[in-house]
Amino acid sequence: MDYRFSSAFANLAPSAIREILKNAGDPSVIAFAAGNPNAASFPLHDIRLLVSDILETKGPAALQYGTTEGYTPLREAVAKRQKERFDVGRDFDDVLITSGGQQALELACRVFCDPGDAVICEDPSFIGALNAFRGVGARVVGVPLEHDGMNIEALEAKLKSEPRARLIYVITNFQNPAGVCTSLAKRREIYRLAKQYGVMILEDNPYGELRFSGEEIPTIKSMDEEGIVVYASSFSKILSSGMRVGFAVAPKPVIAKMTVCKQTEDVHTNLLFQMLCHRFMTERDFDAHVKSIRDLYRRKCGIMLDAMEFCFPADVTYTRPEGGLFVWCTLPDKIDLLAFVKAAMERKVAVVPGTAFATDTQTYTAHSFRVTYATPTDEQLAQGVAILGDLAREMMK
Amino acid sequence: MDYRFSSAFANLAPSAIREILKNAGDPSVIAFAAGNPNAASFPLHDIRLLVSDILETKGPAALQYGTTEGYTPLREAVAKRQKERFDVGRDFDDVLITSGGQQALELACRVFCDPGDAVICEDPSFIGALNAFRGVGARVVGVPLEHDGMNIEALEAKLKSEPRARLIYVITNFQNPAGVCTSLAKRREIYRLAKQYGVMILEDNPYGELRFSGEEIPTIKSMDEEGIVVYASSFSKILSSGMRVGFAVAPKPVIAKMTVCKQTEDVHTNLLFQMLCHRFMTERDFDAHVKSIRDLYRRKCGIMLDAMEFCFPADVTYTRPEGGLFVWCTLPDKIDLLAFVKAAMERKVAVVPGTAFATDTQTYTAHSFRVTYATPTDEQLAQGVAILGDLAREMMK
Repeated sequence: MDYRFSSAFANLAPSAIREILKNAGDPSVIAFAAGNPNAASFPLHDIRLLVSDILETKGPAALQYGTTEGYTPLREAVAKRQKERFDVGRDFDDVLITSGGQQALELACRVFCDPGDAVICEDPSFIGALNAFRGVGARVVGVPLEHDGMNIEALEAKLKSEPRARLIYVITNFQNPAGVCTSLAKRREIYRLAKQYGVMILEDNPYGELRFSGEEIPTIKSMDEEGIVVYASSFSKILSSGMRVGFAVAPKPVIAKMTVCKQTEDVHTNLLFQMLCHRFMTERDFDAHVKSIRDLYRRKCGIMLDAMEFCFPADVTYTRPEGGLFVWCTLPDKIDLLAFVKAAMERKVAVVPGTAFATDTQTYTAHSFRVTYATPTDEQLAQGVAILGDLAREMMK
Repeated sequence: MDYRFSSAFANLAPSAIREILKNAGDPSVIAFAAGNPNAASFPLHDIRLLVSDILETKGPAALQYGTTEGYTPLREAVAKRQKERFDVGRDFDDVLITSGGQQALELACRVFCDPGDAVICEDPSFIGALNAFRGVGARVVGVPLEHDGMNIEALEAKLKSEPRARLIYVITNFQNPAGVCTSLAKRREIYRLAKQYGVMILEDNPYGELRFSGEEIPTIKSMDEEGIVVYASSFSKILSSGMRVGFAVAPKPVIAKMTVCKQTEDVHTNLLFQMLCHRFMTERDFDAHVKSIRDLYRRKCGIMLDAMEFCFPADVTYTRPEGGLFVWCTLPDKIDLLAFVKAAMERKVAVVPGTAFATDTQTYTAHSFRVTYATPTDEQLAQGVAILGDLAREMMK
C-alpha cells in the first residue's frame, strides 16, 4: 500500500537526536550525544512522597479530566516563580501548562503560522523546535549564531527579505546545541527589530534555572511592554523530563488561542504530575533543589572542560558554558565532520554532528559537534574526551 | 495589540463541552453535560500501589525521557489485548502510544490532510475530533448518522463529490454523542467504499470495552486486509482520563509518520503512567476490572432509562444504549432546543445541545441533546430526568 501523506509530513524524517537516543541504551557507549538531564537532578524521594500523598488525598480528582489551561494552583505558582526569578509576566499575560516545553513551541507556531510562513531561527538550533515548525508547514529561516547570540545584521536582512516572517525563535540561555547565551545588547536589538517589523518573538528558556557561573541576563520577555513575546519553559530539566510538564507565558489572547490548539492535541496535560509540580514548588525548597542541580552540572562541566584542555589538540575549539547541558566543539576544517562522528561511534563515543541542528542541512558546512556533560559518569567524561582527542589528532595527520 | 493568527485557528473557538466542563464544578448543578467517566471506574487502590512500586524500583527511568513510539512493554500489551479482544492488528500494523485518544485522532488527521482536504464525519460527532480536524485546516464534511450508523448512500455521494476526501471518521461503538453502534452491515459497507474510493478510515473506539448489553460487533479494523484503517482508543474510560494515555493501531508506515508528528507535539507521553498501564494490564485482572465498570454503567444507565420512561412525555424520544456513557434525547419540533437547554440550566440541570456536535453548526436543525448517566449520583439521575421531563411538558404547552 502506497500512502499519500500531507505535504508537511511527507518529507519530515524523525529527529536525528531521537534516533540516536533510541540506541543510547547500550551501556558500553559513552553517551555524549544525549540531551537528557542527569537523573540525579530529579527529586525522586520527594516525588514519591508527594505522588503518594496526592493519590491518597485527591486521587479521584487527580485521575479525572482537567481543564485545558492547566491546574490552576500550578498556573499561579508558575506565574509567581517566573515573575520573581526572570521578571516574566505582566498584567496582560497568562500561563498555559503544556505537555513539555516542546508543546509550547509547537502551539506557538501553529497559532501564528500558515503553511509557507517563515520562522526565523538561530542557526544552528534545537532540532525538536525546527521539526515542529516544519511540521506546521512553516519555512525555517536561519540566522547565523555567534558567541553572543544571533548576528543582528543578518536578522534584520531576513526580516526585510521575508515579508511572511511570523516568529523569531530564540533560545536565550545556554542555547541548544551551541551552549551560548544571547547578550543583553542583542536581546534588546532582537526585541526592537521584532517590534519594528511586526513579528512575534518565541523565547525558549528551558535551561534558564541552570546557570552555574557568570551573571544573569534579563530575559527578552522581561522587556515585553508591547505583548509580542511568547515565553516557553519547562520542568524537564528540574523535576522530571519523562513527566512532560512545561508552560508558556504569553499575552492573554495568544494563550487563549494556544489553549484551543492544545485542546485539539491532547485535551490537557497529565493532571497528577501538574499537581506534583505545584506541591513541590510550594511545599519544598525549590531554590535549594535548583541549586543542587547547578552544583552538579558545574562540577561535571568542569571535569569535561579540564579533560578537553588536557586532551584536545589546540586546533579543536570548544565553548566554555556558564550553564545548561552542552559543550559545542569545533574541528579544524581539514577533518571531515561526519567521518569523525562515525569513527567516534566505532570507538564507543556518541556525539551529535552539527548537521543535525542546521536550519538547512543541505548547505551545512561547519565542523562542529555537540557533547553533553550532564549524564555520563565522571570517568566517562574523562575517558570519552580522551578518545575524541586521540581521534582528532589521528585525523589531522 | 491586535494579533494575526493562522487561518486554521483564527476562527476556531474552544469546544462547547470544555467550556461547560469548566463550570461543572458547581456542586449544585446536576452534571448531565459532562463527558467524564465515573471516578469509581479508576482502580485507585491498585494505581497507588503500582505507582509507588514503579517509583521505588524504576524511579530514575520513569522520570527520564522516553522514546516517542511509547514504552515498549506497554505497546506489546496493547497489541496483545486489542488483537484478542477486538481482532485489531495484523503483521503490517504497529502501535503508537498517544497522549489520550484525542492525540491519536489529531495525529492521523495531520499526517493525511493538507489544509482544504476533507474529513468525512458522522453528523453529529465528537466535538473534540471535529475541532482537531478543523485545527489542521481540514474541512469537516457531515454524513447523517442513523440508529445503526452513517447513511451509506449519503456517504457514497460525499465520496463522489469530494475528490479531496482523505479520511472517514467513525466512532463505531456507543457513538459520542448519539450513543448508537454502527451495524455490521454498515461497517462492511464503509470499509468497501473507503477501499473503492481510496480513502483512509479513522475508527475511534474509546468506549469499546464498555458494552454492558447486546452483542459485540466486529471492528472495522478487524476487516482491514488492505491496511487502510487507523484505529484509535485509550485508557481514559478504564484506568484514568487525567493521565492522558491512549493509542493508535495502524499500518507501520502510517505509525512511523504519526510518530514523527507526535515527536513535534510532545516528544512522548508521560512515561510513569505508560509503565502503570503496562503493569496494570499484565499484573492485575484487567477483565474483572473492565467487568466492574460495565456493571456500574449498566446499573446507572438503567436508572436513567427507567426515570425517562416514567418522567418524559411520549413526544420526547431517547436512545437505549448498550454501552458507553451517553443517552441521546430528541425533543418534539415545537420545543426550541437552545431555549430548553438554557431553561434546564436555570433549573440546575446541565445538558449539551446537539448543536455542539454538528458538523455544520450553521445549518443544524435537529432537536437533540446529550445526557450522561456516568457521573451523576443515583438520586441525581432520577431527579435530573424528572426536571427535564417537567420542563419538556411545560414547553410543549
